[in-house]
Amino acid sequence: MGDQPSSKPDSSYYDIVIVGAGPVGLMLSTCLARLGYKIKHIDNRAEPTPTGRADGIQPRSLDLLRNMGLKSAIMQHKPARVYEVAFWDPSEEIKGVVRTGTWASCPAFIDARYPFTTLLHQGLIERVFISDLEKNGVKIQRPWTITGFASDEKANPDYPVEVALEHIDGTSRETVRAKYLFGGEGARSFVREKLGIGITHKDPIAHVWGVMDGVVKTDFPDIRMKCTIHSAHGSIMVIPRENNMVRLYIQIASSTDPDWSPRKTATAEEVQASAKKILQPYSIEWERVEWYSVYPIGQGISDRYTLDHRVFLGGDACHTHSPKAGQGMNTAFLDAQNLAWKIHAVEAGFAEREILTTYEPERKKVAENLLSFDNKYAKLFSQRPPAATEVQAASRHTNGHSEDNEFIKTFKEACEFTSGYGVAYGPNVLNWSPSHPAQSRLIHPEGTKLRTGRLMANADVTRVIDANIVHLEQQIPWNGSFRIYIFAGKPSVTSRALKDLAFQLGGKRSFFGSFLRPDVDTVSHHEIYNPHSLFFTICTIFAAARSDIEISRDLPGLLGRYRDLVYADDKWDRRVPDAAAAAHAKMGVDEEKGGVVVVRPDGYVGIVTSLVEGSGTIDALNTYFDAFCTKKTSDSRAQL
Amino acid sequence: MGDQPSSKPDSSYYDIVIVGAGPVGLMLSTCLARLGYKIKHIDNRAEPTPTGRADGIQPRSLDLLRNMGLKSAIMQHKPARVYEVAFWDPSEEIKGVVRTGTWASCPAFIDARYPFTTLLHQGLIERVFISDLEKNGVKIQRPWTITGFASDEKANPDYPVEVALEHIDGTSRETVRAKYLFGGEGARSFVREKLGIGITHKDPIAHVWGVMDGVVKTDFPDIRMKCTIHSAHGSIMVIPRENNMVRLYIQIASSTDPDWSPRKTATAEEVQASAKKILQPYSIEWERVEWYSVYPIGQGISDRYTLDHRVFLGGDACHTHSPKAGQGMNTAFLDAQNLAWKIHAVEAGFAEREILTTYEPERKKVAENLLSFDNKYAKLFSQRPPAATEVQAASRHTNGHSEDNEFIKTFKEACEFTSGYGVAYGPNVLNWSPSHPAQSRLIHPEGTKLRTGRLMANADVTRVIDANIVHLEQQIPWNGSFRIYIFAGKPSVTSRALKDLAFQLGGKRSFFGSFLRPDVDTVSHHEIYNPHSLFFTICTIFAAARSDIEISRDLPGLLGRYRDLVYADDKWDRRVPDAAAAAHAKMGVDEEKGGVVVVRPDGYVGIVTSLVEGSGTIDALNTYFDAFCTKKTSDSRAQL
Repeated sequence: MGDQPSSKPDSSYYDIVIVGAGPVGLMLSTCLARLGYKIKHIDNRAEPTPTGRADGIQPRSLDLLRNMGLKSAIMQHKPARVYEVAFWDPSEEIKGVVRTGTWASCPAFIDARYPFTTLLHQGLIERVFISDLEKNGVKIQRPWTITGFASDEKANPDYPVEVALEHIDGTSRETVRAKYLFGGEGARSFVREKLGIGITHKDPIAHVWGVMDGVVKTDFPDIRMKCTIHSAHGSIMVIPRENNMVRLYIQIASSTDPDWSPRKTATAEEVQASAKKILQPYSIEWERVEWYSVYPIGQGISDRYTLDHRVFLGGDACHTHSPKAGQGMNTAFLDAQNLAWKIHAVEAGFAEREILTTYEPERKKVAENLLSFDNKYAKLFSQRPPAATEVQAASRHTNGHSEDNEFIKTFKEACEFTSGYGVAYGPNVLNWSPSHPAQSRLIHPEGTKLRTGRLMANADVTRVIDANIVHLEQQIPWNGSFRIYIFAGKPSVTSRALKDLAFQLGGKRSFFGSFLRPDVDTVSHHEIYNPHSLFFTICTIFAAARSDIEISRDLPGLLGRYRDLVYADDKWDRRVPDAAAAAHAKMGVDEEKGGVVVVRPDGYVGIVTSLVEGSGTIDALNTYFDAFCTKKTSDSRAQL
Repeated sequence: MGDQPSSKPDSSYYDIVIVGAGPVGLMLSTCLARLGYKIKHIDNRAEPTPTGRADGIQPRSLDLLRNMGLKSAIMQHKPARVYEVAFWDPSEEIKGVVRTGTWASCPAFIDARYPFTTLLHQGLIERVFISDLEKNGVKIQRPWTITGFASDEKANPDYPVEVALEHIDGTSRETVRAKYLFGGEGARSFVREKLGIGITHKDPIAHVWGVMDGVVKTDFPDIRMKCTIHSAHGSIMVIPRENNMVRLYIQIASSTDPDWSPRKTATAEEVQASAKKILQPYSIEWERVEWYSVYPIGQGISDRYTLDHRVFLGGDACHTHSPKAGQGMNTAFLDAQNLAWKIHAVEAGFAEREILTTYEPERKKVAENLLSFDNKYAKLFSQRPPAATEVQAASRHTNGHSEDNEFIKTFKEACEFTSGYGVAYGPNVLNWSPSHPAQSRLIHPEGTKLRTGRLMANADVTRVIDANIVHLEQQIPWNGSFRIYIFAGKPSVTSRALKDLAFQLGGKRSFFGSFLRPDVDTVSHHEIYNPHSLFFTICTIFAAARSDIEISRDLPGLLGRYRDLVYADDKWDRRVPDAAAAAHAKMGVDEEKGGVVVVRPDGYVGIVTSLVEGSGTIDALNTYFDAFCTKKTSDSRAQL
């Protein structure tokens, strides 16, 4: 990624020290390693996770892994895919459980590329990241632990954090200095404790869970489905796994029990005996147990994710919750990606240091939603079994029907949330709102369907240079750049507006022109994404047939340099069946006049503007970026 | 795959000796190795193809590679994908070429999962096969060559072929005995020459081609497309490749030239100079040349593919042609798969040896079509440039419109042919026709859209056990088994017919019951595809919503054992938008009453029958299999 500011005083200086090589630490490390940062990454385990632990990759996380080029390595392990969840309840007629309903885990009203949960043992997922890290020269130092740290920005403004590390057998010690320290060590985070950050327990009820992975022989018909089974003998959750395995979660104790103790336990044999009773009238026998563990878990959330914006926490160090919704690893991934691009934007000189203050509120809100979701969802199903008509209504394509009852609304929210598409970051400098410094009647014009702080919609388009049908939202890989999508409407209508925009982007005082690469004149013609700036990648999408688009004619000025990222919005989409230009229609962008969508490096929409002739569009974009970029554009812009 | 007849007299005895490790040899070897055969595989090159050579994988071949579990390993190399072909011609107005049209390489009227050509260097493709072979214990012996062979079935009925092999430096020799010998050594096949089999030249015109792979810098807009460029300075074909590479084919000489010589050549510099002239007004510069080769090629086809059905030929040893249509590797793959399953069926005791006689006519016809296609297609475009309305009409979903003119018809045929979906095997014992011994009014009932000797249609369905949305045609991997698809219509309508069929299949004298596994009573409950017989895998597809299907209730008798292969035909399909059960509709099977589709192990339809109560269905299937299986079913069946 070019010239990161990585001239280090000596070998004990790092850009970041990352503690813990679970999902959150690995994602952070992988993102930063790709951008050229110098990383010290330690983990106190001698090896990656050998068996068990987290295993659910939600639909949106698969998009994200694909965007990083890691999805195919994960899918090679042939994970189980959960498309539906089955509910089983005790029946009065027969001695045992009966299926009372099944629900899509990611119903059709969510526009997901991969409408299923992917289930794969955490160790295999970790190894995909570790192998990517090794390609970028990062090796995890094992088994090492952190023994202390101190942060003093005044004494050492460049490398304010001092970190003491030690081999777990105590034979070796190291002290290093870093710009940042990240605690991704899980629920019992040393970094969090040392910072004195407390945990708030949203739900005071704690539980002891037993979890068992293994291969079974059973006539239970839904053994390849995710199931929630309630019976007179207790409750169990069934989750299919790769390699013919199945995972069973059993609640062993609850703090509401009269004899509650967080140290209550059960043997594997006891869990198997319980499962046999619960699954009646079906039989179940174990051929092999791969992993068995009992652990107490309380819903908790860290009061702060950072104190000084130099030492950060993420993943389970910030939030613990029941495994039921399968959200742990997914939330960890998003914590890490959210932080990674912001650290990069600051350290590369693009954004003001203040953007780091958006990490905690953005991610803490998601964790709070996750915790309250756990309870809400459980209550939803404990009240009454849903009627078949409700199931149908809840799975409809369209959202927010007025006739939806409370049950359906809650269910839809729950699906959006668990699929990962419900993440919504609130207004701040990055996510435009009417209170943002950028003010123009061109911002968020009528009809816009995209919401700031949420993901851009998916769309199939045809790439002009090679006629490949591609997923627009995947066309820019995770590269730390803001993504400028110019929906260019009809070429005949927008040609002047495009010319103006191309010219103005090239101006030295525009948000774009302010951040040119130092080597802009010698960049290889093979560079697709960052020919001008390391902080921006530009895609152009015309509402025209591919054969009617001529890049040399229709893309003026510097836009022509992004010829690998020019698309024809000419693929029919069942979700907008009457649209002539489906991608424009899905974003809510005018199919004639177009519009500009700015997407943050992590895929969330920052701002949407109209595309107009004159300076209105560039002015709107300039004021948006002025709110957080280090170089301010001219103040003499015409106000529209 | 269980008990193959592989008890060998000693270590110099093999099931098959395969000469040549190009596409045809590797595919044959891979197929047979997976079924447990003992293989001696040699190649006279010290290493797999290092650069250049064949590189086009057609849409249908990608299906086939996926069916063998090899597609993802190939796609990992990020091959180029060709969706459209552009035609460039000289313009009178400007000094140089202009684009006169673009055409989908696999238009929408072809129901392809992957409507593009995949372009990847042959060596990378070879390595995918080689790595699969190694998993099955087959290592290619290099650099070894064949020096002689003799076949005498009378003297040695079990291992009739004696083969002499030698290290290419002459330091080492081996003589082995085998059941079969396969010559896949390319155009200059030693095996073919030794057999005295001649080559017929369909088109007497020979050509010298220059081919160059490299990385270029150009402003030619279609450099990432497949292009056919005619200019006043000659003609060129452009094909995009992986890793930013491009391949150029230039015709250097033709036997119609006054100074024709098959030894005429051109240097890389000369070819580059020609390309520069041809591409005017665009510029082109080479950054790197990866491979350059000049070779004479004549259209030729081997008169026989075998003489004794012990020594076989396939791939380029049987057919040579111009590289323009990108068919070489694809035809080789299908030669090999066609032969592989037939050898298996015979050697495993399932089919009579006579089925081997179907290899030559089935595959030779395809090669003949390929050769005549080459000329026809060239003529089609040389006559006149197609009108825009013709392009549209030719790309329509529906086929065979009465208003289609000759041009459109030829174009559609050409697309079907080059995509690989046009392969059609003629009537024989395997591909039912009215002259087949199996006669029943239930065979090929009115409405059937499937054609025997052609591929089954693609269809999305929902797998019942795990609610996964899957590609029906990919549900049975390449396993050497016949595929019995029971389209079961509405469960309430067909329950009796299914019960009858399940009971009759289980009968010892049915085609199915005659070929039970010897270990049928001890097969693991994890076995999905072949729990009863190594020669059959059964899928059942109900025209019902997934939630309405209960396997234990709806699948009687032995059919219940195939619970992993039960599907709900409940996914909407744009090609049959009004169908309630799209998969049934696409096959032309009654959505209420269902039907049975028998597909050969290589994916081609053998026979289609109605699904009826009583013995009509099993009788029809029994007579079909009786035509070529070693064990005949009872003759006392009721005739309907």
